[in-house]
Amino acid sequence: MRLIPTELIRKKRFGGTHTREELHFLVEGFARGLIPDYQATAWLMAVCFSGMSNEETAWFTQEMRDSGAVMDWSELGLTVDKHSTGGVGDKTSLILAPLVAAAGIYVPMMAGRGLGHTGGTLDKLESIAGFSVGLSSTDFKKQVREIGTAITGQTADMCPADRKLYALRDVSGTIDSLPLICGSIMSKKLAAGVGALVLDVKCGSGAFMKNPADAERLARALIDIGTRSGKKVMALLTRMDEPLGRFVGNALEVRECLEVLFDKKVAYEGKQPTDMVELTLELAGHMIFLGGKAADPAAGRELAAKLLLDGSAGRKFQQMCERQGGLLERPLPEARNCYVVKADHSGYLHYTDLEKQGLAAVILGAGRRVQSDQVDPTAGIEVFREQGAPVGKGDILFKLYAADEKRFQPAFDALRESYRVAGEPVARSPLVAKVIT
Amino acid sequence: MRLIPTELIRKKRFGGTHTREELHFLVEGFARGLIPDYQATAWLMAVCFSGMSNEETAWFTQEMRDSGAVMDWSELGLTVDKHSTGGVGDKTSLILAPLVAAAGIYVPMMAGRGLGHTGGTLDKLESIAGFSVGLSSTDFKKQVREIGTAITGQTADMCPADRKLYALRDVSGTIDSLPLICGSIMSKKLAAGVGALVLDVKCGSGAFMKNPADAERLARALIDIGTRSGKKVMALLTRMDEPLGRFVGNALEVRECLEVLFDKKVAYEGKQPTDMVELTLELAGHMIFLGGKAADPAAGRELAAKLLLDGSAGRKFQQMCERQGGLLERPLPEARNCYVVKADHSGYLHYTDLEKQGLAAVILGAGRRVQSDQVDPTAGIEVFREQGAPVGKGDILFKLYAADEKRFQPAFDALRESYRVAGEPVARSPLVAKVIT
Repeated sequence: MRLIPTELIRKKRFGGTHTREELHFLVEGFARGLIPDYQATAWLMAVCFSGMSNEETAWFTQEMRDSGAVMDWSELGLTVDKHSTGGVGDKTSLILAPLVAAAGIYVPMMAGRGLGHTGGTLDKLESIAGFSVGLSSTDFKKQVREIGTAITGQTADMCPADRKLYALRDVSGTIDSLPLICGSIMSKKLAAGVGALVLDVKCGSGAFMKNPADAERLARALIDIGTRSGKKVMALLTRMDEPLGRFVGNALEVRECLEVLFDKKVAYEGKQPTDMVELTLELAGHMIFLGGKAADPAAGRELAAKLLLDGSAGRKFQQMCERQGGLLERPLPEARNCYVVKADHSGYLHYTDLEKQGLAAVILGAGRRVQSDQVDPTAGIEVFREQGAPVGKGDILFKLYAADEKRFQPAFDALRESYRVAGEPVARSPLVAKVIT
Repeated sequence: MRLIPTELIRKKRFGGTHTREELHFLVEGFARGLIPDYQATAWLMAVCFSGMSNEETAWFTQEMRDSGAVMDWSELGLTVDKHSTGGVGDKTSLILAPLVAAAGIYVPMMAGRGLGHTGGTLDKLESIAGFSVGLSSTDFKKQVREIGTAITGQTADMCPADRKLYALRDVSGTIDSLPLICGSIMSKKLAAGVGALVLDVKCGSGAFMKNPADAERLARALIDIGTRSGKKVMALLTRMDEPLGRFVGNALEVRECLEVLFDKKVAYEGKQPTDMVELTLELAGHMIFLGGKAADPAAGRELAAKLLLDGSAGRKFQQMCERQGGLLERPLPEARNCYVVKADHSGYLHYTDLEKQGLAAVILGAGRRVQSDQVDPTAGIEVFREQGAPVGKGDILFKLYAADEKRFQPAFDALRESYRVAGEPVARSPLVAKVIT
């Protein structure tokens, strides 16, 4: 049968269901430029309206995976990774990779860069002097085999179809479509080749999914693709209506992680762990459980807490840094300028639109509005109060950091749309709202 | 305000209403290549799903009109044209232009070529040796001023935005959208600059609109754009579930028109006029009424019948041919081969899917599947029976004509899906179902 792009676009436009053969033809055609971009965007828009079935979405994802190189970790047995849908101050990956590896599980982590209001693990790691996130597949495999973990970027030969389609979605108003989002996330994870995956699906005003129903729908769709593709996948729906932890911004977040990894007083010892440590341990517990080193996620969490407190995770992090060229002995870069934001009246702190705080960090230089933007590793926000905390007039709420002090005013303009100090208290959302398997 | 294509695409995707300024930015951007094709097709697909309001559609149409040259006929007072939405065997334009001009009304007719299952007036006229349908605007104006009518193609400088967008719609599965269809039809008519327009909106299995409700919706949408753009517009909803007249195909249809124009016995004298003559007189009546030469369409029709019978229309046609280089004294080209289709049992003829008959004509060479196809002027179908006619076994139903006899079998395969001979009779649809003003 001869397939004709216009007819396939019309099929999707009028609510039809694609066959695997059709999706192969489309994805391969888009990736190799055999089907022009103007047909790709018409089809993408038709998908935005007509959707795709679970089976179509899985096929679409697998076709994107197969458009490029796929890593094979079978020699190591079960490998485990984590993926977060992105939020403000989300830095758990930096601790999770070495922590779970310290439990004897192989964690080959392929991470991304920040775009829009969310940060990216690779940008964070690059604020450590010398740290290389551009490992070759050979070096990536060698390092994971030898020390259990590595965090690196996707190689250029992986998922070219996703890269092409994502760039087209970005300029054609077709980013926010559940099957397209799922396909993009999971094709990269499938190409990275790990056997099990814990998904951290963020929910709230600082997340892509603003409400629990949408977040759960996304989680279930991601799990469905993974399962249909032979992977073990679980998802945690987690809080993203306030920043995670105390810092937002690359070097600032690394500093926060180093304190957790190396300074027991800060992290955990004898105190209630912070939300960031709490979430890291929850995710680690599920990764350790999926990796077969604990009978259930709770036991996994206990093991994770032990490995964090006894310094194993820190040592593994040090090992990873050494292998990837990171010079931990050098001080992290620090911003030349600081701008303090104080409460102008007393009350309770409400984070009302956390995405705006992410945008403030981007304006400071911590992230990218467009892919070509340069990141300032020192830029970011120090967060002094959690959701609902009582504040007095004149209390410090935030400190803004940047290399360029001209950025403070526009960043503050964005930041002050992200919160208010109100008369009534507000309850914090649960850190983990739901676990979905 | 700075307009951003992706944001406008998203606005339409999520059901927003464009401002005039936005539509100007989009249409100009598409036409001049300032906005890339992949954004154009995404926007077109979003319009297919989200639609456009009447006001948006009129603005969109006017912006396409204004993307190129617009003809100005004000020196001649009120000018009148007709537009048909296309069908099988529809040849009324060839008679209407000279007939209405014979009533003293200026008829500057800009016609099109055949595409898909419908024929085109320009292709038909080109089967007359020497006939030129590529008049310059200057020659077009001069001829209309001097003899009252001309039929020519759109000049290359008219409606470039429509040409660009139509080509993109054709390859992106976005042809069938009411506002886009209306914009394409009316932008060309508005650019042609006539003051009044009679629309022949075809309805039935051989038309673009298969059912009366859709046809009426199209008619009302076209009238709305015309009215908002300062034009006098009326529409007739007419039958297109059986072929119009006795021939389908370029030279064959010209022959049929010449008989009507020059041979009173064939056309009208003392007999019930054929459906083709009937419809031509109805349309002419409305054109003459809109042109101010009759008190109502019925009086216009009476005048049209008189001008057809007394030879005035024929003389005007002759004059038009002479001015456009057509050599009427030369015989029309005739097909080398003929293929006869007979009834294999008796019963009543039902036209069940007339579009298939149009496709059979295209396969014979009478039309184009794609714009670059060459047309065989001699190819076509002679139709022997009307809808519901009783037929005996062995009666001739159709004769197929073509220069290339290898085309008969595939054409017949398409044709036989267009009709059946059944036991029960079937009523003909009314030729004119409704007049909409």
